[in-house]
Amino acid sequence: MKKKRHAHSKKTGLPPGTLIHTGDVKTSQVTLTMFRYSAEQIEERTITSLDEIPSESENSILWLNIHGLHDPKIMAEIGLKFKLHPLVLEDILNTEQRPKVDVYDDYLYLVTRFFTYDSREMQINSEQISIILGEHIVLSFQERPTGSFDPLRERLRANKGLLRKSGADVLAYALLDMIVDKYFIMLEQISDDCEKLEDQLLHRPSNVVLQNIHKLKRETMDLRRAVWPLREIINSLVRNEFDFFQESTTLYLRDVYDHSIHFIESLESLRDLLAGMLDIYLSSISNQVNKEVRILTVVTMLFMPATLISGIFGMNFEHMPLLKDYWGFWIALAFMLLVAGGMGLHFWRRQWLSRH
Amino acid sequence: MKKKRHAHSKKTGLPPGTLIHTGDVKTSQVTLTMFRYSAEQIEERTITSLDEIPSESENSILWLNIHGLHDPKIMAEIGLKFKLHPLVLEDILNTEQRPKVDVYDDYLYLVTRFFTYDSREMQINSEQISIILGEHIVLSFQERPTGSFDPLRERLRANKGLLRKSGADVLAYALLDMIVDKYFIMLEQISDDCEKLEDQLLHRPSNVVLQNIHKLKRETMDLRRAVWPLREIINSLVRNEFDFFQESTTLYLRDVYDHSIHFIESLESLRDLLAGMLDIYLSSISNQVNKEVRILTVVTMLFMPATLISGIFGMNFEHMPLLKDYWGFWIALAFMLLVAGGMGLHFWRRQWLSRH
Amino acid sequence: MKKKRHAHSKKTGLPPGTLIHTGDVKTSQVTLTMFRYSAEQIEERTITSLDEIPSESENSILWLNIHGLHDPKIMAEIGLKFKLHPLVLEDILNTEQRPKVDVYDDYLYLVTRFFTYDSREMQINSEQISIILGEHIVLSFQERPTGSFDPLRERLRANKGLLRKSGADVLAYALLDMIVDKYFIMLEQISDDCEKLEDQLLHRPSNVVLQNIHKLKRETMDLRRAVWPLREIINSLVRNEFDFFQESTTLYLRDVYDHSIHFIESLESLRDLLAGMLDIYLSSISNQVNKEVRILTVVTMLFMPATLISGIFGMNFEHMPLLKDYWGFWIALAFMLLVAGGMGLHFWRRQWLSRH
Amino acid sequence: MKKKRHAHSKKTGLPPGTLIHTGDVKTSQVTLTMFRYSAEQIEERTITSLDEIPSESENSILWLNIHGLHDPKIMAEIGLKFKLHPLVLEDILNTEQRPKVDVYDDYLYLVTRFFTYDSREMQINSEQISIILGEHIVLSFQERPTGSFDPLRERLRANKGLLRKSGADVLAYALLDMIVDKYFIMLEQISDDCEKLEDQLLHRPSNVVLQNIHKLKRETMDLRRAVWPLREIINSLVRNEFDFFQESTTLYLRDVYDHSIHFIESLESLRDLLAGMLDIYLSSISNQVNKEVRILTVVTMLFMPATLISGIFGMNFEHMPLLKDYWGFWIALAFMLLVAGGMGLHFWRRQWLSRH
Amino acid sequence: MKKKRHAHSKKTGLPPGTLIHTGDVKTSQVTLTMFRYSAEQIEERTITSLDEIPSESENSILWLNIHGLHDPKIMAEIGLKFKLHPLVLEDILNTEQRPKVDVYDDYLYLVTRFFTYDSREMQINSEQISIILGEHIVLSFQERPTGSFDPLRERLRANKGLLRKSGADVLAYALLDMIVDKYFIMLEQISDDCEKLEDQLLHRPSNVVLQNIHKLKRETMDLRRAVWPLREIINSLVRNEFDFFQESTTLYLRDVYDHSIHFIESLESLRDLLAGMLDIYLSSISNQVNKEVRILTVVTMLFMPATLISGIFGMNFEHMPLLKDYWGFWIALAFMLLVAGGMGLHFWRRQWLSRH
Ligand SMILES: [Mg+2]
Ligand SMILES: [Mg+2]
Ligand SMILES: [Mg+2]
Ligand SMILES: [Mg+2]
Ligand SMILES: [Mg+2]
Ligand SMILES: [Mg+2]
Ligand SMILES: [Mg+2]
Ligand SMILES: [Mg+2]
Ligand SMILES: [Mg+2]
Ligand SMILES: [Mg+2]
Ligand SMILES: [Mg+2]
Ligand SMILES: [Mg+2]
Ligand SMILES: [Mg+2]
Ligand SMILES: [Mg+2]
Ligand SMILES: [Mg+2]
Ligand SMILES: [Mg+2]
Ligand SMILES: [Mg+2]
Ligand SMILES: [Mg+2]
Ligand SMILES: [Mg+2]
Ligand SMILES: [Mg+2]
Ligand SMILES: [Mg+2]
Ligand SMILES: [Mg+2]
Ligand SMILES: [Mg+2]
Ligand SMILES: [Mg+2]
Ligand SMILES: [Mg+2]
Ligand SMILES: [Mg+2]
Ligand SMILES: [Mg+2]
Ligand SMILES: [Mg+2]
Ligand SMILES: [Mg+2]
Ligand SMILES: [Mg+2]
Ligand SMILES: [Mg+2]
Repeated sequence: MKKKRHAHSKKTGLPPGTLIHTGDVKTSQVTLTMFRYSAEQIEERTITSLDEIPSESENSILWLNIHGLHDPKIMAEIGLKFKLHPLVLEDILNTEQRPKVDVYDDYLYLVTRFFTYDSREMQINSEQISIILGEHIVLSFQERPTGSFDPLRERLRANKGLLRKSGADVLAYALLDMIVDKYFIMLEQISDDCEKLEDQLLHRPSNVVLQNIHKLKRETMDLRRAVWPLREIINSLVRNEFDFFQESTTLYLRDVYDHSIHFIESLESLRDLLAGMLDIYLSSISNQVNKEVRILTVVTMLFMPATLISGIFGMNFEHMPLLKDYWGFWIALAFMLLVAGGMGLHFWRRQWLSRH
Repeated sequence: MKKKRHAHSKKTGLPPGTLIHTGDVKTSQVTLTMFRYSAEQIEERTITSLDEIPSESENSILWLNIHGLHDPKIMAEIGLKFKLHPLVLEDILNTEQRPKVDVYDDYLYLVTRFFTYDSREMQINSEQISIILGEHIVLSFQERPTGSFDPLRERLRANKGLLRKSGADVLAYALLDMIVDKYFIMLEQISDDCEKLEDQLLHRPSNVVLQNIHKLKRETMDLRRAVWPLREIINSLVRNEFDFFQESTTLYLRDVYDHSIHFIESLESLRDLLAGMLDIYLSSISNQVNKEVRILTVVTMLFMPATLISGIFGMNFEHMPLLKDYWGFWIALAFMLLVAGGMGLHFWRRQWLSRH
Repeated sequence: MKKKRHAHSKKTGLPPGTLIHTGDVKTSQVTLTMFRYSAEQIEERTITSLDEIPSESENSILWLNIHGLHDPKIMAEIGLKFKLHPLVLEDILNTEQRPKVDVYDDYLYLVTRFFTYDSREMQINSEQISIILGEHIVLSFQERPTGSFDPLRERLRANKGLLRKSGADVLAYALLDMIVDKYFIMLEQISDDCEKLEDQLLHRPSNVVLQNIHKLKRETMDLRRAVWPLREIINSLVRNEFDFFQESTTLYLRDVYDHSIHFIESLESLRDLLAGMLDIYLSSISNQVNKEVRILTVVTMLFMPATLISGIFGMNFEHMPLLKDYWGFWIALAFMLLVAGGMGLHFWRRQWLSRH
Repeated sequence: MKKKRHAHSKKTGLPPGTLIHTGDVKTSQVTLTMFRYSAEQIEERTITSLDEIPSESENSILWLNIHGLHDPKIMAEIGLKFKLHPLVLEDILNTEQRPKVDVYDDYLYLVTRFFTYDSREMQINSEQISIILGEHIVLSFQERPTGSFDPLRERLRANKGLLRKSGADVLAYALLDMIVDKYFIMLEQISDDCEKLEDQLLHRPSNVVLQNIHKLKRETMDLRRAVWPLREIINSLVRNEFDFFQESTTLYLRDVYDHSIHFIESLESLRDLLAGMLDIYLSSISNQVNKEVRILTVVTMLFMPATLISGIFGMNFEHMPLLKDYWGFWIALAFMLLVAGGMGLHFWRRQWLSRH
Repeated sequence: MKKKRHAHSKKTGLPPGTLIHTGDVKTSQVTLTMFRYSAEQIEERTITSLDEIPSESENSILWLNIHGLHDPKIMAEIGLKFKLHPLVLEDILNTEQRPKVDVYDDYLYLVTRFFTYDSREMQINSEQISIILGEHIVLSFQERPTGSFDPLRERLRANKGLLRKSGADVLAYALLDMIVDKYFIMLEQISDDCEKLEDQLLHRPSNVVLQNIHKLKRETMDLRRAVWPLREIINSLVRNEFDFFQESTTLYLRDVYDHSIHFIESLESLRDLLAGMLDIYLSSISNQVNKEVRILTVVTMLFMPATLISGIFGMNFEHMPLLKDYWGFWIALAFMLLVAGGMGLHFWRRQWLSRH
């Protein structure tokens, strides 16, 4: 997993609540899109000035989505407008957070992560998504527009499902659900790469394959570590430890909880698979050494006797058999071939070079 | 374990409760079989129209078994008829669930899995079985007819045991018991394959054996992960956290609980066995290299001295001993044989080639 | 650990409480021995008909020991006589249970296991011992007479210790104590075999030794899995979760608890020992390869230069030094010996062949 | 991690509360710097005599920082002045403590550690920082001046943030925050060294690289062990188990808690990385052996046939083909080249020597 | 860790409370030393007859230390005198106990272990120390006099620290503290041996070093298992689960608790170190093989071409170049040297034999 490594260290010594965007995404502009809806009506707008944002009202749900976190001034204004704690604002901008849920008097602050898999680099990239859930309001913060929430917008516009009829907590649930659903798309991509690696392992094992298996295994474990707290968070929401979700919504959160467990177990299964592949690689190298030594042994055994025979008939004794014989040379050659052939037959019978 | 890998990702972005069958079994027709029984009487029928299903009654237990989940329309009607929550219906159709128990006001929703082992592919296939337990009703959902519950039907018809005299909770227990009992049949098949692999390992170790051991080990671990939550579920039923089981039935659930633990421990034992086999394979390869090098060394040591001797008597010095001797050649040959024989005797005594 | 593998699968589909003996011990006859004792008097009898068994009484403790479980009819009668739950009877006969304690209204049902170690097969055999503890009664069920409880019988007859003066709970404790004490005898036998293997490993490492180490390690881990739940059971008895033990007896149970922990830790220590032996074996093979290659290298380095020298003086140039010299041959030989001797000295100094 | 190994053993047998400085830092002088501040005013002073220290007052916060712990007498006086328990004083001087929090009636005693990474030795050095938090007072004890708290002093002087407006608990929080922030600077340095090692591993694997990987892995694990309790401590502060922190401050402690978890997970990720590197190293050695054997085999296969041919034509038969032929020698040479070339081509085609 | 292996098995079948000393230390005589002290006065005596022991009194603390446990009769008398439960007496004599704390009505029974490290055998020896803590009395039982508690006696006599002013609980704490302090002395000795092994590993790796590393690792893990329960015990004393310690003393117990955790973590760090050493050993052997093969390859490559050249000029063709040339022989020799020298240069440049 790619680490924005200076994220933390560049904040050392600053007072808490200092707003510094630690991500590396500097989109040209901060974009605020607003939905305001009730069962009866819906309003959709792109906000250009913070004054345009209506204040919270009992009769409608307000969803404000913010893309782009690089402008501390705008963020500070938003924080002021919605009375967010400085530490919350700091965490929204500090985009290397672990998933967590923090409860404040008027709102719940949820940090989750959104993952994309870069198959070419065999690397998982991750992005922080911050969700603020108030009584009639949901704020969502992302570094860049990814279109991840578009199906949700469609559902809102089309008034499909329960969304429009329900409170802000159902919208927050829907965002979580969308995020976790997307995890499975990434999981498929990783599984595909696993299969490719497994194929390469069996047909063209090489050092690069080994490194890739290690890379993918590490990515998988980092991913597991990053998703594990989300599981805990959703569980705490299901147990309704905080009062921001209605009883009926917790049934739906339980569904997301199921999916997060399923996802983590799939990762564990992948990790087992990759660990097994490492084992197979190592034993395939040992096997390779074995084969090489075998070839060397066979070559040596085929040529050494023949060389000895030629040496024997190259000795300078006056009295030696065959030397004067007309067929002597050919008899010697035949003898060499016989020995070599006999050994070759022996090896062939024992399937020394073909099998294993 | 075979993964229906697009199960999750094809549901991304859909509102909760959207009914999509994610399994790959499309039996030609949905089959509903109904049992209605009390201690005194029993009625067995195959349902063709949902109108035929009697409504719940205080005086008899209704068991409805549904084979085939591919028709969302029929499933929606069933859901309506028995007032099932949309998320329950969704989970019944989404056949890649982890075992779980969800409690609703009027019924308990149990997801379990049924496993079959394909010895040829060394693969465990799994199927989801959903059980709805109401006060006087049990619904069971499966993807295809497997005959797993036939002994139960027999018992109902023959009025053997407690089934007919007891409530719906005993029927639900009996279904669970049947499912867990079948796990042991699969366990035996896996154990048999383990033994075959162990045999091959000792007599014909090869790369294919290694891969099979890894495969079986991974399957075993996936299986463990899949059964582990069932253990927890049954335990929560035994502790009677939900009110759907009678005190007397929990004694029976405890029996199923014992079996599920026993099963998991047997899997752990199998995993140890397979892990040990991997170790033995690796050391058998090292041993093999050892043996090859030894053969090479022996061959080299047998021929090199002889070759040197032949080289010495092939030098062109004018004054050399033995050259003119009548027996010179034979003396040289004898010397060669003597050295080679001495070395051979040495190796034979040290049991270099036979033992180890 | 030897598994009676069809134990579970042959019960699939049967109603709960079906009595089938799953063990493989069919002793010729079921033997019932009865002790009835109080502080003042004691009666010992071998029961031939169930009618001979006196009914429970306030004034004396009744201990009934049953050897042989193969006759379901007799077992059913015993169950009826002492009002045992069908599931208890089923578990008594199904002799592959995990240790457990089940509480019923009138009695406690304890399952423990008794282990014997077969040193020749390096295999642990286990036998189920079921204990029923009522208010004034103890029933113990075993597959075959092993004499394990004989010292207890002696103590009863001789009125040594507290047994005769105490209630049925002390008798049950004494049975448990006896069983756990015997575990240590087996532990010693396993330790002895470990030491033998360690000895073989260092002096005659072979593939068979490797397999035996693996075997013993797996047996040890299976044993640990089998004893672990006993620890939990005794702990629950110590905490007096069930009301069948008197306060004063829990002190004694705590003693058994200590022993069971001690036993498990000794097993873990053995497992570490065996795991280390596997490591040593693997490195000893690598070492072996190393040694072989070294011998090969030495032989090659001793003979190759000499062979080259002989080849050089075997060339057919007209003008070559030494060829006509009277001492030429001997000078060449001396040169060969010199080179070989120099190299040999070099190796000897570096202790190439002796050490490591 | 460097261990001051005689730290503990030199205190054996002494009564509790005996003041012995176990660290190895003996700065020339003990330095006490004092800050006394309220929202309105601030006083900063270097203390030379303990009498100069003002006593605790309701209207201002007193922060006393002590550098240098080698003088038991001064420490004893400070202890007396602020009524510290002898065991607290002992722990302040015994600078090999694990992080912990101990609650006393009038103050909280916090032990944390400050780490610096010595890249040249690949070693983590650690220093103990003791913090005493009273109602209006904070004492901090360090072995040597490191400038770690300078930004905090700046903030106090400049009256930035909440510090001056808040109580002693916020100051204590700020110290903790500063310490944990610095952990990430060290983490970056370790990560840099990891990357360097990874680079060396792939391009110049050597025994030294292996030892360094092991060293760094061990340091990482020791570090994890040393930071783990800090996480627990901060968590207990967040849960406000002790009454020394105000409700509003626990929000800030939660922020430090997040960072400490993040740090530990990063360490775990590093450990995975290093473990993977060890695997790659081992397989790269096996690969290397493979390559060497391959070269040996190729050389043998190129020269052995040619040597045999030369031997054949060196035999002394009277009747041999080609010997008298004018081109005989060249034909023999060509034949040698042909065989060697054919084999070379074969190897080249199989990419035996270039590719793995 | 040395196991007194027949400790347990020789007690099989005996009634509980049977007094058998299972240790192997039979000192010539049981020695009882008595301290009776209050803040004002102190009495020290060696007891020869049990009648000399004063009975418990409100005004002074009685500490009785017993060396030598081999005489069951004396032990039984002591048990009677102080009303010890038979199981306690049994455990005192059965010197292979795990550390534990058992609470009785009138006293607390603590079992701890005292370890000494035998560097020559790389073996940890352990001895059981039993401590009985009553309201005004402390009994301590050891197998042999080791002088471990001498500093404590000194402190009592000199009236240093709190001991004389405090109750029996502080004396018990002081004994525990003394025991744990001694653990660190042993830890240093083990660390020293680790360092020696590390040194040998890098400079003279051998099979013996490997076995020693394994030995030490196993000892370390056994030690960890043996100390782990002590940590739990002290923790339970700190939490004051039993009423035998005063509130003020628990502060001191917390200090011992810190030390026990520190000790366990140091053991874990040692275990990591030893595990890393095993890895390095294995890879050093592989490296060794690599080097040997390399030497073999180099030798082969240096001599094979020269041998071929000599063979070529040893062929018996009539028409061969150079044979009649006066400088032919020297040209051939030069050619041999050239080829060998070229190859040697090539190897030298690639640093084949020096580096790695
Ligand atoms: Mg900060
Ligand atoms: Mg979802
Ligand atoms: Mg992370
Ligand atoms: Mg967590
Ligand atoms: Mg669902
Ligand atoms: Mg898997
Ligand atoms: Mg969905
Ligand atoms: Mg069953
Ligand atoms: Mg799964
Ligand atoms: Mg779970
Ligand atoms: Mg049962
Ligand atoms: Mg096993
Ligand atoms: Mg059954
Ligand atoms: Mg016992
Ligand atoms: Mg376990
Ligand atoms: Mg078992
Ligand atoms: Mg358990
Ligand atoms: Mg005991
Ligand atoms: Mg041991
Ligand atoms: Mg001390
Ligand atoms: Mg911070
Ligand atoms: Mg440490
Ligand atoms: Mg902890
Ligand atoms: Mg934060
Ligand atoms: Mg990583
Ligand atoms: Mg006993
Ligand atoms: Mg101490
Ligand atoms: Mg352990
Ligand atoms: Mg414990
Ligand atoms: Mg301390
Ligand atoms: Mg370490």
